[in-house]
Amino acid sequence: MSVMGEKSSSARRAAERPRVVIVGAGFGGLACARKLNGTPVDVQLLDRSGFHLFTPLLYQVATALLNPSDIGYPLRTIFRRSRNVRVHQVMVGSVDLRQRTVHLSTGQEVDYDYLVLATGSTDNYFGNVALSAASLGLKTLEQAARLRNHVLACLERADEESDRDERRALLTFVVGGGGPTGVEYSGALGELIHLVAGKDYPSVPRAEVRIILVEAGARLLGSFSKRLGDYAERILSRRGIEVRTATRVEFADERSVTLAGGTVVATRTVVWTGGVQPLLPNTNPPLAVARSQRARVDAYLRVIDNKGVYVIGDAAAAEDGGALPMLSAPAIQQGRYVARSILRDATGSPLGRPFRYRDKGTMATIGRNAAVAHLRAGFELTGFLGWLAWIFVHIWYLIGFRNRLAALFSWGWNYLRFDRPIRIILQATPDPLVSAIEAGEDEDQRP
Amino acid sequence: MSVMGEKSSSARRAAERPRVVIVGAGFGGLACARKLNGTPVDVQLLDRSGFHLFTPLLYQVATALLNPSDIGYPLRTIFRRSRNVRVHQVMVGSVDLRQRTVHLSTGQEVDYDYLVLATGSTDNYFGNVALSAASLGLKTLEQAARLRNHVLACLERADEESDRDERRALLTFVVGGGGPTGVEYSGALGELIHLVAGKDYPSVPRAEVRIILVEAGARLLGSFSKRLGDYAERILSRRGIEVRTATRVEFADERSVTLAGGTVVATRTVVWTGGVQPLLPNTNPPLAVARSQRARVDAYLRVIDNKGVYVIGDAAAAEDGGALPMLSAPAIQQGRYVARSILRDATGSPLGRPFRYRDKGTMATIGRNAAVAHLRAGFELTGFLGWLAWIFVHIWYLIGFRNRLAALFSWGWNYLRFDRPIRIILQATPDPLVSAIEAGEDEDQRP
Repeated sequence: MSVMGEKSSSARRAAERPRVVIVGAGFGGLACARKLNGTPVDVQLLDRSGFHLFTPLLYQVATALLNPSDIGYPLRTIFRRSRNVRVHQVMVGSVDLRQRTVHLSTGQEVDYDYLVLATGSTDNYFGNVALSAASLGLKTLEQAARLRNHVLACLERADEESDRDERRALLTFVVGGGGPTGVEYSGALGELIHLVAGKDYPSVPRAEVRIILVEAGARLLGSFSKRLGDYAERILSRRGIEVRTATRVEFADERSVTLAGGTVVATRTVVWTGGVQPLLPNTNPPLAVARSQRARVDAYLRVIDNKGVYVIGDAAAAEDGGALPMLSAPAIQQGRYVARSILRDATGSPLGRPFRYRDKGTMATIGRNAAVAHLRAGFELTGFLGWLAWIFVHIWYLIGFRNRLAALFSWGWNYLRFDRPIRIILQATPDPLVSAIEAGEDEDQRP
Repeated sequence: MSVMGEKSSSARRAAERPRVVIVGAGFGGLACARKLNGTPVDVQLLDRSGFHLFTPLLYQVATALLNPSDIGYPLRTIFRRSRNVRVHQVMVGSVDLRQRTVHLSTGQEVDYDYLVLATGSTDNYFGNVALSAASLGLKTLEQAARLRNHVLACLERADEESDRDERRALLTFVVGGGGPTGVEYSGALGELIHLVAGKDYPSVPRAEVRIILVEAGARLLGSFSKRLGDYAERILSRRGIEVRTATRVEFADERSVTLAGGTVVATRTVVWTGGVQPLLPNTNPPLAVARSQRARVDAYLRVIDNKGVYVIGDAAAAEDGGALPMLSAPAIQQGRYVARSILRDATGSPLGRPFRYRDKGTMATIGRNAAVAHLRAGFELTGFLGWLAWIFVHIWYLIGFRNRLAALFSWGWNYLRFDRPIRIILQATPDPLVSAIEAGEDEDQRP
């Protein structure tokens, strides 16, 4: 196998070119790989999906404004001209930190001199099994495509449905979690409904559609200031979204959601954006984790006692157990920092300064012409200005990708024209070969 | 249910507004519905997928140049401003021609005064069950998305594979059927491979990739002239596609294809474009069919002995049992013709002239800068001129759809830049609600 072949060929030149393995090609892993591109190290970038996902626009795929391919960019294309970065679409099974070997779920192995775990995070249901089974997520491209299909199918069904209770259940959308994802998705869903209810779906009156945003905390956007959180709630409410703060989702099944206090809401759609938890591979010895379950790292983002192993992004806790927000900005900064550290170490230079996160601000859209932004030095923006800032920043980041400008143009165009072009329900039949890659199953059973 | 509700409310005004039911929103059904839009009849357009598919560009979705949503246009959007055309995403179970009732697979019923069956065609494996199980189709949007995923997964696997035989099997693509679809797909697949082999997939040398186009007939493009068929073969061969005419596919499984004469080709990919068969709902009494299994219609496209029932497009045979080609042009002309006939009949006007197909020509691309076109009066084009003609005609038809121009721009842009932007593998998890609509299953089992 060429991953193993790579290992042996890398082994031959190990003396001259250190082997760096990066697990995960989210913002952190990708930033690290890009920084190492063209340097005298061999980089193996391992990623399950094979594409980098621009997660800040995921909610727009889920609301039929963007195509999945607009925000999923093939890693092979990003590194097609690279001489030292190789991309592998594989699943990592476990890591032997003593042998310095990554075990793939196919049974293959990859040796490393430096390991960067940029494995990110996944949905957290806080032990609520019913919720985990009955809700739709919004963290992967597959989930976003499924959510789009599901919401459109609800509208289709509702348009044919004469039973009033059933129609209302089909037209009730419950979003759990009032962080940026929940706020952005419910705002965008409100706009989608506003565009199509009573028009494309003539039997679906806008007044029958309910979007309920449920947040366990005292207010929306807990990571922003109270002023911005209150502003988001005001705008969403004005646009017809029912916001319920200080309300926990107790239970959910295919037909309803039970909120704290026993309120039962009949619905066919529960979207869960209410929590994330770090995702780490099994390691030997196990990684030390903080209470947040994020891996403990030192001030240089190194796993304590395992020289050459770094954890960055959502999967990493800061030295003091305190945590950086699970956002793209810290992950990108950490990815670049670790790349520099590896190059220093590989060339025998002394350790640099400890990692320090530079907060350039965070932002969230609430819908057309409204966003909140918290910029550095406590500067805050709301409304149209916040929205312009949001667009500017997202164009800026997207431009890093070749050809993304066209996608953004088309998106801006449709956004201005109040159109939702991607309004088709499409489920591609699962293909065994694709599923084998995604499951990491070894399909290779010929004699 | 509102479809039934529609029935009773339609019944009330039946005296004034005739009820037209169109089954299928392909080129024929859509043309008919558009022609009836704004006229004094009530139209119910029933379609399983809910979107109109621009099939001539399906092979571009399968080769990662277009997004599925670029060629699938929501019917509800097309008719969102219509007062008399209603769209329903449903499956038709059967038709009672005596009672003039369409039975949906959900158990609902729709009554009609005029029925237009525009149900199209599906893959034909000529009884070869093994082939039908082992091959991938290229007739629906789902199939195209799956084929894209599959081919990209083959490249991913091949890039990691060190076993030479297995790698070659992963890199061997067999296309069965040398009609326009097979020719266009193999040409476009050749270009995709040429763009990515050795670049995005550094361990995949172009020389190891084989694309084999197999045609049972004596030459490619049997529906075109011999000159154009030979030209297509020459161009494809020059671009590295192995063309095997007068060769039948005997057998196929997950690991190989057996061609006539006993040649076994190890491959993981068999694409079947070698035949189509008409698709008709069960009717009572059964429809008379020609040898081609297409429904017999009279010179006015009426089902004989069933006044008010029309069959158009791929599902219909001409009066003399001879057949029009299964292309968009005859279907569109028939759809418009039938719409006019219905309006005449509904207003008490006498029967118009019999339907006559006006052949405006057919065309097929063979790849970048090369196409064949057969225009009226025996005029033929090849090469770059044919390609320009192809682009012109397809722009012309696509422009019928709002916003398609942007898609075409983006496509042209990427085509000129030799890019394939949609190169991600994405399988959306099946959603029960979507599957219920597509299967026509009655999910409605609450007490």
